[in-house]
Amino acid sequence: MGSQAKKANQAASVTHVISKLHAQFGERLSEAPAVRERFGKDESFHASIPPDAVVTPHTTEEVSQIVVLCAEHQVPVIPYGTGTALEGHVAALQGGISINLQEMNQVIELHADDLDVVVQPGVTRKQLNRHLRDSGLFFPIDPGADASIGGMTACRASGTNAVRYGTMRENVLALTVVLADGRVIQTSRRSRKSAAGYDLTRLFVGSEGTLGVITEITLRLYGIPEAISSAVCTFPDVDSAVNTAIATIQYGIPIARMELLDEPQIDAINRYSKTDLTVAPTLFLEFHGTSRGVEEQSQMVQEIASESGGDNFEWTTNTEERSRLWQARHDAAYASKALRPDGEIWATDVCVPISHLAQCIRETQQDIRESKLMAPIVGHVGDGNFHLCLLVDKGDPEESQRAQDLHERMVMRALAMGGTCTGEHGIGYGKLDFLVAEHGEAVSVMRTIKQALDPDNIMNPGKILRI
Amino acid sequence: MGSQAKKANQAASVTHVISKLHAQFGERLSEAPAVRERFGKDESFHASIPPDAVVTPHTTEEVSQIVVLCAEHQVPVIPYGTGTALEGHVAALQGGISINLQEMNQVIELHADDLDVVVQPGVTRKQLNRHLRDSGLFFPIDPGADASIGGMTACRASGTNAVRYGTMRENVLALTVVLADGRVIQTSRRSRKSAAGYDLTRLFVGSEGTLGVITEITLRLYGIPEAISSAVCTFPDVDSAVNTAIATIQYGIPIARMELLDEPQIDAINRYSKTDLTVAPTLFLEFHGTSRGVEEQSQMVQEIASESGGDNFEWTTNTEERSRLWQARHDAAYASKALRPDGEIWATDVCVPISHLAQCIRETQQDIRESKLMAPIVGHVGDGNFHLCLLVDKGDPEESQRAQDLHERMVMRALAMGGTCTGEHGIGYGKLDFLVAEHGEAVSVMRTIKQALDPDNIMNPGKILRI
Repeated sequence: MGSQAKKANQAASVTHVISKLHAQFGERLSEAPAVRERFGKDESFHASIPPDAVVTPHTTEEVSQIVVLCAEHQVPVIPYGTGTALEGHVAALQGGISINLQEMNQVIELHADDLDVVVQPGVTRKQLNRHLRDSGLFFPIDPGADASIGGMTACRASGTNAVRYGTMRENVLALTVVLADGRVIQTSRRSRKSAAGYDLTRLFVGSEGTLGVITEITLRLYGIPEAISSAVCTFPDVDSAVNTAIATIQYGIPIARMELLDEPQIDAINRYSKTDLTVAPTLFLEFHGTSRGVEEQSQMVQEIASESGGDNFEWTTNTEERSRLWQARHDAAYASKALRPDGEIWATDVCVPISHLAQCIRETQQDIRESKLMAPIVGHVGDGNFHLCLLVDKGDPEESQRAQDLHERMVMRALAMGGTCTGEHGIGYGKLDFLVAEHGEAVSVMRTIKQALDPDNIMNPGKILRI
Repeated sequence: MGSQAKKANQAASVTHVISKLHAQFGERLSEAPAVRERFGKDESFHASIPPDAVVTPHTTEEVSQIVVLCAEHQVPVIPYGTGTALEGHVAALQGGISINLQEMNQVIELHADDLDVVVQPGVTRKQLNRHLRDSGLFFPIDPGADASIGGMTACRASGTNAVRYGTMRENVLALTVVLADGRVIQTSRRSRKSAAGYDLTRLFVGSEGTLGVITEITLRLYGIPEAISSAVCTFPDVDSAVNTAIATIQYGIPIARMELLDEPQIDAINRYSKTDLTVAPTLFLEFHGTSRGVEEQSQMVQEIASESGGDNFEWTTNTEERSRLWQARHDAAYASKALRPDGEIWATDVCVPISHLAQCIRETQQDIRESKLMAPIVGHVGDGNFHLCLLVDKGDPEESQRAQDLHERMVMRALAMGGTCTGEHGIGYGKLDFLVAEHGEAVSVMRTIKQALDPDNIMNPGKILRI
């Protein structure tokens, strides 16, 4: 079939699928341009690529019915959580149906004694923690946005607590998944560990909707610590801050959060959040434990920091002060954006073995200066992961190119150090080439798996892999 | 082709492969019956099923050459670590070549600052910890046997420290794998986390040699804690002990080890290890942290235990006493076996959500009594995982049947509680039906992946899945 005939054929298939969905879902199926526009766009600089329609199921069975219909007509399926991804994950590159999971937002079963909970994919992380508050438990994974648990699972999200609690990789116990042919599977049981067969749970965590639609997630939970304290400490340079982080981890101090902000980022926060932080490379720290334990941890890290030249170590257990500090940290991206209201944020995401982190950041800062770009840095320094908030005027092709070149050099720098092009944002369609640079022949194994599980390439096509 | 002609054909292929291997590997290729017999047998009750030959490579490249040759002639390949598996993992069900990885036993690169190490698959866990001693670091995963890191990775092993440090699932950062066609891939980089593409690392962890041969493993390491203390506490019944474990975890106490032993097991240990432990349901505990932290943890758990009726809580930081205690724990299986020297051990391995653990153990103890079988219990109670050391006279078919029936009822009991048929031993060929009972339709996804990555079914055929 010629490509034009194929296109006409595809259009007819989509029309047919939409009419069928309309009959079943009524007002839960939308073709309104504004709706489509919204569902084709995430929070990144990637432009909207609207799906042909948006459908809003309420159950796993309905998701399965949608996928069966789409599979029959080879129409693409794009799962949608909150649209807070950063690599164009929800863009309908080949058209198709966006499955809006926002109304599948029930906490299904809380097992407080087992420290786990079963949720629908549209539950957001803040919603979950509100639900858990009275149980004395919490769910620690906190990407900046109030993302959905389904989206966080699909993108293998992490955030500021990962240094202690791990990422979605470590905290998803089991999944219900609708496969590319509509079959529904359960990837695992609720038990803490299992050696029973291939680890399908981990295969779907981070698969970005390309292998199936996640419709139920069983998560690990943690007891809310008896005591929490936060601290801020400034350093003469990035190396000293990173060395403090390395030593803290080597001593086995169970630090909960350890965030690095460079001078431009602290300056941006001071302007945006009306704080009065010393403009210097800074660590934001948090300790979880017993009252005595938290005090001991703080003291140990203070000693380590002062050996590395850390100064002005201030710590607090006051809830309000803590909230203000971490809100300022979570607003870092907005603070950066406010530095240049006409610019767009290009969030980068390399992660390296921690011994290379200082060098990677130092060389990148140098490169930012030489590239005459504005790019405050925040980093999950305990994990070796850091982000530039590259501020780019997309209307200026020359500047955009400079930003792209800077990004590429940074990724190659990270790969050369044994690192990854993405610590927590995922590949989407923004990092397809970087994935190949990073994984080489292993990408062909990913492609083999994709083709085996989704032979018609209808599940979020064009993401992660070029098929 | 008829099945007889096929067999003759296969025999010719094997002969050809062996002569080629002999030419390349010389004395590192053995067809001696005693060697073949040994390499076809693990530590379980499963009889030896010898491979046609055993070859001992020294490099990833040599492994790749062996696999290329076997693939060309469709001859099965069975990776061999230390032979300490428990579900017949190394049995050559369809003949073929056993790849003995014991001479690939080098620690390749230690990255102390990054808390990781790259090792060859034949390195054993004790060898690794001896190597690490001077670095102040250690690797915590400790199945009873001194297994190889390659085997532990392939079987998703865990052990007594998993409640704090996780299993091989959480502690493998990256792998080098020889695929079924001889291609070599690297599944990931050394960075602590990554969101770059499908999680191939976790796919190969627990794949039991059925998807490829693991030839390099990058592991997470931990700082040796400043202080370690151990404790023993007896309880009036299993429920009280399990409730203590649940509360300990809910309070977020970072306990390192929490092992349950029932009365028959304590009795067996007293006889075998010449200890003088009170014969009662008992928790063996271990705390890692700072001196003050370890003291605080011990006190908190003592309080929790005494609220549950725990008694005789004794704790120590004395290294010799601690070693004696944990050696006794690690010798539990041998102690059980000594109860009945003519019997064989049938080690079971269910794992359930912890809230169901007391009930699962209680019902199982009742079933053991009613079945008139001898089966001391040890459990990694923090993970919900427990083992029976079923002592069976294999020469008595009636008794063997009773043991098999008991095991099946226990697995079904665990599955009904949301548990798994294997917490850490794996499927091998001993639990193929249980895998299906546990995972249902998800097994077909495993099969799809297996067939896509090993279309000729040469990688450890007959394990995990019936193809």
